[in-house]
Amino acid sequence: MGTYRAPIEDMNFLIDEVLDAENALGTLPDFADYGVGSELTTVLLDEAAKLAGDELAPLRRVGDEQPAICTDGAVTTPPGYDAALRQLAEGGWIGISSDPRYGGQGLPEIYNTVGHEMWNGANMALGLAPMLSSGAALAIHAHGTEAQKQTYLEKMNTGQWMGTMNLTESGAGSDLGVMKAKAVPEGDHYRISGQKIYITWGDHQSTENIIHLVLAKLPDAPEGSRGISLFIVPKFLVNDDGSLGERNDVYPVSCEHKLGIHGSPTCVMAFGDDEGAIGYLLGEENRGLACMFTMMNEARHKVGVQALGASEGSLQKAAAYARDRVQGGVPIIEHPDVKRMLLTMKSLCEAMRGLAYTEAVTMDLAHRGPQEDRPLQQSRIDLMIPVIKGWLSEVAQEVTSLGLQVHGGMGFVEETGAAQYLRDVRITPIYEGTNGIQAADLVSRKLGRDGGATMEEMMTEVNATITRLQAAGDARLTGIAESLTRAMADQENATRIVLAELKEDPNVALGASFEYMMQTGYLFGGWHLGRSALVAFDRLKSGSDNPFYEAKIATAQYYGEQILPRCAAHAGAVAGARGALQSFQQEWI
Amino acid sequence: MGTYRAPIEDMNFLIDEVLDAENALGTLPDFADYGVGSELTTVLLDEAAKLAGDELAPLRRVGDEQPAICTDGAVTTPPGYDAALRQLAEGGWIGISSDPRYGGQGLPEIYNTVGHEMWNGANMALGLAPMLSSGAALAIHAHGTEAQKQTYLEKMNTGQWMGTMNLTESGAGSDLGVMKAKAVPEGDHYRISGQKIYITWGDHQSTENIIHLVLAKLPDAPEGSRGISLFIVPKFLVNDDGSLGERNDVYPVSCEHKLGIHGSPTCVMAFGDDEGAIGYLLGEENRGLACMFTMMNEARHKVGVQALGASEGSLQKAAAYARDRVQGGVPIIEHPDVKRMLLTMKSLCEAMRGLAYTEAVTMDLAHRGPQEDRPLQQSRIDLMIPVIKGWLSEVAQEVTSLGLQVHGGMGFVEETGAAQYLRDVRITPIYEGTNGIQAADLVSRKLGRDGGATMEEMMTEVNATITRLQAAGDARLTGIAESLTRAMADQENATRIVLAELKEDPNVALGASFEYMMQTGYLFGGWHLGRSALVAFDRLKSGSDNPFYEAKIATAQYYGEQILPRCAAHAGAVAGARGALQSFQQEWI
Repeated sequence: MGTYRAPIEDMNFLIDEVLDAENALGTLPDFADYGVGSELTTVLLDEAAKLAGDELAPLRRVGDEQPAICTDGAVTTPPGYDAALRQLAEGGWIGISSDPRYGGQGLPEIYNTVGHEMWNGANMALGLAPMLSSGAALAIHAHGTEAQKQTYLEKMNTGQWMGTMNLTESGAGSDLGVMKAKAVPEGDHYRISGQKIYITWGDHQSTENIIHLVLAKLPDAPEGSRGISLFIVPKFLVNDDGSLGERNDVYPVSCEHKLGIHGSPTCVMAFGDDEGAIGYLLGEENRGLACMFTMMNEARHKVGVQALGASEGSLQKAAAYARDRVQGGVPIIEHPDVKRMLLTMKSLCEAMRGLAYTEAVTMDLAHRGPQEDRPLQQSRIDLMIPVIKGWLSEVAQEVTSLGLQVHGGMGFVEETGAAQYLRDVRITPIYEGTNGIQAADLVSRKLGRDGGATMEEMMTEVNATITRLQAAGDARLTGIAESLTRAMADQENATRIVLAELKEDPNVALGASFEYMMQTGYLFGGWHLGRSALVAFDRLKSGSDNPFYEAKIATAQYYGEQILPRCAAHAGAVAGARGALQSFQQEWI
Repeated sequence: MGTYRAPIEDMNFLIDEVLDAENALGTLPDFADYGVGSELTTVLLDEAAKLAGDELAPLRRVGDEQPAICTDGAVTTPPGYDAALRQLAEGGWIGISSDPRYGGQGLPEIYNTVGHEMWNGANMALGLAPMLSSGAALAIHAHGTEAQKQTYLEKMNTGQWMGTMNLTESGAGSDLGVMKAKAVPEGDHYRISGQKIYITWGDHQSTENIIHLVLAKLPDAPEGSRGISLFIVPKFLVNDDGSLGERNDVYPVSCEHKLGIHGSPTCVMAFGDDEGAIGYLLGEENRGLACMFTMMNEARHKVGVQALGASEGSLQKAAAYARDRVQGGVPIIEHPDVKRMLLTMKSLCEAMRGLAYTEAVTMDLAHRGPQEDRPLQQSRIDLMIPVIKGWLSEVAQEVTSLGLQVHGGMGFVEETGAAQYLRDVRITPIYEGTNGIQAADLVSRKLGRDGGATMEEMMTEVNATITRLQAAGDARLTGIAESLTRAMADQENATRIVLAELKEDPNVALGASFEYMMQTGYLFGGWHLGRSALVAFDRLKSGSDNPFYEAKIATAQYYGEQILPRCAAHAGAVAGARGALQSFQQEWI
C-alpha cells in the first residue's frame, strides 16, 4: 500500500493542456527539432514514472533505515542506490535539459522539472544526487573554458560522473564572506586546502569520478564575499585523453546524522590535508560567488520541486491508507475531517505543481525565448524563485504532517513510512538559502529593485484570469474568482506596505518579508488552480465527460474556499510589522 | 547551551498575578490549610525547576539516542530514567494534586500542571510516565472500591508503583467498539486475555509494580462500545498485607520504533498468553468506557501541557543559539526574520500557557468550587478541553519547527537536539484522541449540546477584557483590544455558522470543525495575553520598573499584530465548508 506512482495524468494535463508546451516551447528555435508536445510528454512521463515507481521508490525506506555512512575516508551509500542512479543515467535523465553539445538531451526545462518531481516523490535522498550534480554542471557550462567543458561536462551530463557544490564552512552558513578555505597558485592549477561542511553527496562509489566545485580564497584576495574564487577539484585527476589519473587529495571526513534524507551522504569534506588538493579555476579570480549565483535560480527552483515531490508522495500514501482503513464501519476517507486533510493536501500539491511547472516554462523563455521578451521573463523568474523555494518548502511541512496525521497512531511508527516524508522534507526550508533568506531576497532585491513593477505585471495576469473565471457563467468558477479577488486586494495592500517600508525602514520590510512571501505563494498558487479550472471547464463544455476535469474544478474551488483565506492572515501580519516586532527588545526574549 | 530552565518568572506571574491562585483557589475549603499563594508557588516552582533542569533535562538526548527496548518479555528504559523517576516520586510530585487520604499531596491542580509543563519541557519521553500513571490512579480513585483504593492508590500516588492505560487494539484505534480482549469471570476475579497496542510505559523496571488498567469484554457483553468493561491487572499480584505476590500473566511483546519520544516504551502488551492474566473489575460491568471517559479531561489537558512544555524547551534552545551565533557581524537574534521567529514562538508559548493554566484553575473550581458554581465551571472546562488538547498540540508543531529553523543547517543535525523537540511533540496531535476527534468533540458535543451558551458566556468575558484594554488609555493596549475585537467578530460569525450547520447538515459542521477549533484557540490564547498585559500595565503604573512587565505587554501586542489575524483565515475556511469540501467525490482524491 502506498507505493509512489507518478501522477502522470495531472502532469500531462498541466504541461500539455494548461501550459500548452507545444506552442509555448515547441516553437522556440532551440526546441524546434524535438517535437515538443503531448506525444513526447506522454512517452517521457511514462518512462520516468516507471523508473521512479519501480526502481527509486522501493529504496526510499531502505535508505532511511540503512543510511549512507563514512568509514576510512570513503562513503558507502545505501544498498541499491548505485544501480538506481545508473538507471537514471542510462535513461538520459541526468542531462535531460542540458546542452546537447556536451552530452545533454537538450529538452525543455519542464521535462527536467517533471523528472525531478518524480525522483523526489519516489525517494528524496536519492533524488538529491542528480539535483546537485546538475547544479555543478550548470556552473561549468556557464563559466568553464571550452577545454573544461570538454573534459567534465559530457561525462557529468550523461551521469558517468557526478558533481558536488562545496560552499559552507563551519561557523559560516549563509555568511560566505568569512570563508577560510585557501587556494594557492601552482603553475596551471591551484593547491586547495580547507574543510567544508554539509556537502550533499560529497562522496560515494556510484560514479567513477566526482567533480567537486569548491569556493576558496586566493592568498591576496580582498576581504569578504568579493574575494572568493571557484575551483574545479576532481576526486580523480583527469588525464589529457580523458582517462582517470591520480587520486586527488580530497576525502570525506564524516557523514552527518540527520533528521531525514538518511540515504543522502551529507559530508564534512577535507581538501588538501596531505599535499593539497589540485584544483582548477572556474571563471575569473575573486568572482566565485557570482559564478555560484548564476545557477542559484535553477537550484532553488529544484528545492521547491523536491518539496512538491515529497508532498505528492505523502498524499498518495495517506489517501491509500484512508481508503483502506475502516473505522466506525466506513473507510476513514469518508470522515469529514479526514476528507478535509486529504483535500488540503491535494489542493496544495496541485497549487505547488502549478507554480513550479509554470515557472519552469518561464526559465526557458528567459534563456531561449524571443530576445526582446527575455528581460521580462528573467525578471519574472527572479521574482518567483524565492516564492517557489520558500512557499513550496513551507507548504510541504504542512502537507507531509497531514499525511502523517491521516495515519493516526500508525503515522508515528517509523515502519509505516509516513513520518519519513516529514523528516526528509524538513531540510527544504533550510538549504539553498534558508527561507528567511528567500523572503529577504524577495522583498529587498526582487520587489525593491523595480519598485514592484514585475509583481504588478504578474498581478495583471491574475486579474485576467479572474475576469475569465467570472465570464464563464458557472457558480463554482465565480466562487474561485471571488476568492482570488479578495486575495488580490490583500496582495495589493501588502505590496504597497512592503514597498513603502523598504524606503522608510528596511528592517520593517524585512520583518514582514516571510509573511509576504507566504501570502504571495498562496495567491499565485490559487491563480494557477484558477487557470486549471478554466481549462477543465472548457473541456467539459466541449463535451468531455472525464471526471478528471470535474475534479480539477472542485480542487480549485476547495482551494479558494479553504486555503486562499490564509492570504488575509498574512496580509494582516504584514500590516502589523511596524509594531511590537520593531519595539521588542531582544533582551526580553 | 540550551539546557532547559523552567520559566519560573513567567509561571509565577501567571499563577499568582494573573490567575491570583491565593484568592481563586486558596479560599476553597479543600485547599484552606495549604497556604496557597505566592510563597507556596515560589517554593514549589523552585523545587520542581531544580528537578526538571538538573535531573530530567540531561536525560532528554540520552533517551533519544538509547531508546527503551524490549527483550525477552521485559522492557529496559534508557540509562538514568529509573533514578530520575524515583526523584520525582520522592519529591512528592507524582501525587501532588491527588487525594491526601490516599497518599496524595492534595494541592490544587495548577501545581500539578506546572510540574507537568516542566517535566515535559525537560524530557517529554520521561514526562509521559507520571502523566499516564496519574490517569490510571484517577480512574481508580473515581471508580474503585474502598479496598481497591487502599490496595493500589497510595502506592501509585507516591510513585512507588506506576499505572498504565490499555485501550487500543490492532485495527481499532479511535474505534473502541470493535475490541477483542476478553475477560472471563472466575471467582472474585476475571481471567483477561488479548493483545493491546500503543501502551505507553507498558513495561519497565522503574517501579516494583505496574498497575495496568485494561479494557476488555465479558463473555456475553452487548455489541459495540456499551459492552466494554474496565479491569485492574497488576503486573505482580498484591497479597492481602500489601506485599507483592505472584507474577501476573501480562508481558510486553515489543516496543514500537517511533518518530519521537524514544525514551518512552510504547509497548505491544500480551495479556493471558499463558494461563490468563488475573484482573479485577473496576467500576461496573459494561461501563468501562464511561469509567475511562471520566478522566479524559485531565488526560487531554495534560497532552496540551506536554505540547506547551516541548514548545518552551524548543524556544529556549533556539533563543540561546540565536544569541550565540554570529552572522554578518551580529548575533542572528538581531536579524529581523530570526527575531520574528523567536517572537512567534514566545508569544505562542505564552498564549498556550495562559490557556492551559487558566483552565487548570477551572478544573479545580468545577470539582471543589462553590457547589452552585460547579455546573458552569464544568461546562466551561468541557468546552475548552478539546481546544487545549487540539490547538496547543497543533501550535506546538509550528513552534518546534521554528525552533529547528532558527538553527539553520545545524537544526537538521540530530546531535544539536533541536529536531528532537519536533519529533517528540509530533505525537501530541495524535494520542488521547486525534485532533480530528477533538474538533468533532468541540463542535458536535460541546458546542452543540448547549446551543453555544457556554461559548457565549466565555466570549462575554473576552469582551470584558477588551473593554478594560480600551479603557487603559495606552496605544499598545488599545491595539491589542482592536485585534481581539476583530477576532471576536470572526468568532461570532464562525460560531453562528457552525451552530446552524449542526442542525442543517452535521457533516458540514464536522468538515468545519478543525478550522473552528484552531480559530477558537487563537482567540482565547489572545484573550489570556490581553489579561496578562493588563496586569503588567497595572504593575508599571503602580511604579514597577521591571522590564519583565514591559515584555508582557509587548508579547501581547505582538500576538495581536502577528498571530490574531489568523482567526480571519480560519473563519473564512469555516464559512466555506459547505462548498467543495461537501461536493468533492472521494473517488477524485
